Formats: sequence, C-alpha cells, structure tokens
Amino acid sequence: MSLPISSHDVLAAAERLRGVAHRTPVLTSRTADARTGARLFFKCENLQRMGAFKFRGAYNTLAQFTPEQRARGALAYSSGNHAQAVALSARLLGMPALIVMPGDAPPLKIRATREYGAEVVLYDRYTEDREAIARRIASERGMTVVPPFNHAHVMAGQGTAALELVEQVREIDGGGLDLLLACVGGGGLISGCAVMARHLLPDCRIVGVEPEAGNDVQQSLRRGEIVTIHVPRTIADGAQTQHTGDLTFPVMQALVAEIVTVRDDDLVAAMRFFAERMKLVVEPTGALAAAAAFTGAVGVRGLRVGIVISGGNVDLARYAEFLAGTPMG
Amino acid sequence: MSLPISSHDVLAAAERLRGVAHRTPVLTSRTADARTGARLFFKCENLQRMGAFKFRGAYNTLAQFTPEQRARGALAYSSGNHAQAVALSARLLGMPALIVMPGDAPPLKIRATREYGAEVVLYDRYTEDREAIARRIASERGMTVVPPFNHAHVMAGQGTAALELVEQVREIDGGGLDLLLACVGGGGLISGCAVMARHLLPDCRIVGVEPEAGNDVQQSLRRGEIVTIHVPRTIADGAQTQHTGDLTFPVMQALVAEIVTVRDDDLVAAMRFFAERMKLVVEPTGALAAAAAFTGAVGVRGLRVGIVISGGNVDLARYAEFLAGTPMG
Repeated sequence: MSLPISSHDVLAAAERLRGVAHRTPVLTSRTADARTGARLFFKCENLQRMGAFKFRGAYNTLAQFTPEQRARGALAYSSGNHAQAVALSARLLGMPALIVMPGDAPPLKIRATREYGAEVVLYDRYTEDREAIARRIASERGMTVVPPFNHAHVMAGQGTAALELVEQVREIDGGGLDLLLACVGGGGLISGCAVMARHLLPDCRIVGVEPEAGNDVQQSLRRGEIVTIHVPRTIADGAQTQHTGDLTFPVMQALVAEIVTVRDDDLVAAMRFFAERMKLVVEPTGALAAAAAFTGAVGVRGLRVGIVISGGNVDLARYAEFLAGTPMG
Repeated sequence: MSLPISSHDVLAAAERLRGVAHRTPVLTSRTADARTGARLFFKCENLQRMGAFKFRGAYNTLAQFTPEQRARGALAYSSGNHAQAVALSARLLGMPALIVMPGDAPPLKIRATREYGAEVVLYDRYTEDREAIARRIASERGMTVVPPFNHAHVMAGQGTAALELVEQVREIDGGGLDLLLACVGGGGLISGCAVMARHLLPDCRIVGVEPEAGNDVQQSLRRGEIVTIHVPRTIADGAQTQHTGDLTFPVMQALVAEIVTVRDDDLVAAMRFFAERMKLVVEPTGALAAAAAFTGAVGVRGLRVGIVISGGNVDLARYAEFLAGTPMG
C-alpha cells in the first residue's frame, strides 16, 4: 500500500527548514544508560524554536502555501505547541494567523502564541468541538486550516527530527539505532519519523508511547480501525487527542511495531530525571518516550535507542510543583 | 610578563579531554537577543559531564599525575562542582579520591560526589579552614591536592570551554565574538578562557561576573593586589570564594577588562529565563554571566557575546523554589 508521505517528502521538508529550524542537539547520559542497560540518544526538540518539534511541521506546511493562501493566512486548532508553531511560522513567512485554543491550555502557551502575533480564540475542550469552530472561522475569513497532525506536509516536517537524529547518532559514534521511541498524540511526529527512520535504518523498530489515560492509538492499532476516546485526563496535555487521523493511521499501521503506555507518575519521575541529571526542562508530553524506556514499558536492555524529547513548554509554576513533588492539580 | 599558562597548554588540555569531556552545545535564543539588542551565544557547560565546566580542569590535572600520584590518589576541597569533577575524573582514571566539602553544600552535590566513589569529609565553612584540613589529610595519606582553581593544569583545562565556544560560534555563522562573559569564583574558568580567547580573538573583550556580595576579585583588580573577604552570603554557592590565587590573579590582571557584579535576584530572574525560554536547568552560579548581560551590568547592545553557562547542579527542591518565586532560605 502506498503511504501518504515518503522519505522524499521528509528530505524536501528538511531543505525548507534548513537555516530556519534548529538542528537540535542529541544528548546522551551515562546515568540513564546505566539505569536502563541501554545506549540512549535523546533528540532534544525541547530546544527547538518555540520549544517543540511542532515548528518543523507547521513551517513545512505554511512554506508551501500559494500566494492566495498566504494573503488570507493560516488557522490552527491546538492544545498548545502546534498553535505556537503556526503562529511563529506565519510571522516568519509574513502572513496572518488565527489560533483556536482550549481555555485550559497552559497559560505560557496561550501567552507565547499571542506574543508571536497570532489572534487567539479560546474554547472549552470538554464541551465544544474545536474542529467545527475552526472550520466556521476559516470559511468566514478564507483562512487555510493547518491541522495539528493529519496533514501530509505536517507529517513530513515532523519526520525531519528523525532524519537529524539518525545523522547525529552516526556522527557521535558511527552507529545506528535498534529502536526509535516517540510520543503519540495525534500521531504526526511518529508517522513522519517512522517513514524517515524506516528508509535510513530498515531494521530499526519503531515504538510509540501514549499516556495510559489516552491510549486511543494503541486501541486503534489493535482493532485495525480508528478508535475515538473521551478527552483523556492526563498531565501530558500534548497527547490529549481523542483520535488519530486517516493519514497518520495507515502510516502507523504499516511502520509502528507497537504502542506502549506510561502513567502520569512516570512522566513526573522522568521530568525530574531530566532536570536533575540532564539539566533539561521537559514538558510532560515531552517525557513520554523517555518514561517508556525508564519504566521498562518497552524493553531497551542492550539496545541502541533513539528517544525524541518532543517539547519543553510547561508553565513554570506548574513545573516547579512537579519538581517539588507537591500534589498536582 | 609571562603568564602561568599559555594557549598551548589549553590546546594540550583539549587533546587530553577529547572523547572524555562533552563538546557541549552552544545555544542561541532570539528572545534573549531581542531583549538585549545583542547576539548571544550560550556555551552550555551545565550539559557537561557531572553538570559543570569543572570536569575539564580536574580531568586535565589528574590525567597528568605520575604513577606514584595515581596510586595514592587525589584530594580536593570544594563547594561542590570541583568535588564531583575530581571524584569523576579519579574514577575514570582508576585512582582513589577524597573530597573535603562544606556541610552546607547542596545535598545533590554531596550525594553525587559519593556516588562517583569518592570519600567525603565535611567541614563548617563559616568556622573551619578547608585548606588546612585538606593539607593535613593529604600529608597523612600521601594524596595529591587538586586545588579548585589556582593550578596551571586546572586553569588550562577550563580554557578548553572557550576554545570550543569560539570554534562553535564560527560554525554557527562564521563570525567571532566582541565580548566573552564568564563567572568568577576563584578565577580558574575566566583565566583559562581569557588566555585561549585572547589568542584566537585578540580583539575580544573579556569581562568577569561576580555576585555583588562576593566581589573579591573586583576589589583585587582595583587595588592591584589579592583582597580577602568574609565568606559571602549568596545563592551563587560556586562563587563563595574568599580570595583568588597567585596564578589566576596575574592572568586576570593581564587579560580581564573588568569585573561586574549582579544581585541574587538577578540570578533568579536569569534562572527563570533559562527554564522558561531556553529549557535549561542552570544553577545560580551558572547564571552569573548571563545575568550581567540581561541586567545591563555590562553593555552588550550591538555586540556578539559569548556567555559561559558554567553549571546546572542545583538541588531540585531549592530549584523548584527559585522557579515558583517562593522565599529563599
């Protein structure tokens, strides 16, 4: 079966992103290696522009707008990082942006989105349908909706993270990867990364990680069809998607070996490890992939493992609570 | 006047450290650039092994021990990072290590030092003389004292941070640096960096940053002789030195244009900026150089500025307090 994107699409995205996105560092930790018995390579997308991998997909999409589309601008609905990614990309490309965001998104993300010059419309994620709101405003204003994950250009852009990771691991010690771990919200990141990693490292196993409370993709892959769940209650706000899409799903069916899950407590423990041992601020969603390796949700012993740290945008007050170990809201 | 170390010593240290120390990333922040009107390049020594630049100097020193010295081992007195640096270097080189540490050092640092396999002896930094304690134990056991800063091999090792920084800035955009900012505790870091930077970039101005409460080097440079102060009360625990040394001082006299100071509040603000905007955990001392640029303690507008983030070892509970803005102990 032909997939919605190919490695050529990811390579073309990498060309568009050259000099615009950061080639984020890949860090290693002997402590993490000792604890897991693996060799772990952390791709630090928390150090990406606007603090998350989402910039890659958004910029790759907006950069391919027609002049007509550029004039009317981009519209996105997002729990946070995609919003900032579209807002920043729009500013860099000189077009208007409007973002439909849940009212309970981290204040830092709402503020940052506005600071990037975007218009923000808030909604209640437990009662309102963000896609319907987005479609209505887009049709009124002639704006182009940029979906957070279910779009070939978005997926191809996210795949550039895996392209760099594989290149950088090779630079570090000449080796490849046995396993690639990425978080799964809607599936845009892992779809793009899987396509690229499969091309570069045919034997690399690709595993996705969801929060235990939001395992819609795990259910979907088991049933062979897209499953929709209630809005999951998890601190991993970037993975509160209710269902994956018709473009991401077939890619995951073809290339993702399995989806594993981790609990919110495991995310906090991983965030604390990143702060204490690796000096990195990682948001809860950004800790999903690492938490799967740390907890043993996926077996890593003896393996060379690429781990995408997807983002670092977390409200400081809330982050301080996570680090201090005080009860979470 | 001939200085205690030359750029050749730093280059030789870089060879010893190759494949052992991390070539830590240099990160940039458009937000920081916009706020300061400068182009800032952050050398992330918080991402160095054991979390601080100190590993460079310690390893460079221990690697040059004679077989006799290696058999008896290394002894260090340190407020924290130097301790871990000597402990880790000793382990890597297969020799014993003993560390004399202040009892009020961050628990994380004491624990980490023990985890690296070193024996730890605690003392009261407000009443006892750590150098005397260290000398006594060293003579009893035949161990070699590794001073935290006033030693040519230590200074040369620290200078490799500037060597990499200048190389990496060139890789980023082909340019040089107008200004190099580094924190000053005892002066080991800035001495080594100044020697290397002056050689590579003769026109680069070198400025040191001390906590306002612990400005002994600022006073010393103004008076033309080494001034000793009381143990300063500052959250920058890595800069609580009472006086610089007879090897570091002449280097600073020759190459450091000036010393500026920042307040503890400025350090907390800089630490919050690093966490929120750059996703980096930085310890108070590690924020000194950046805080000078952020506050305007040193003029940076229109300049290309290298900033050494010296370390990231801060107790998580205390770090959470800094981020939350709760009162400090």
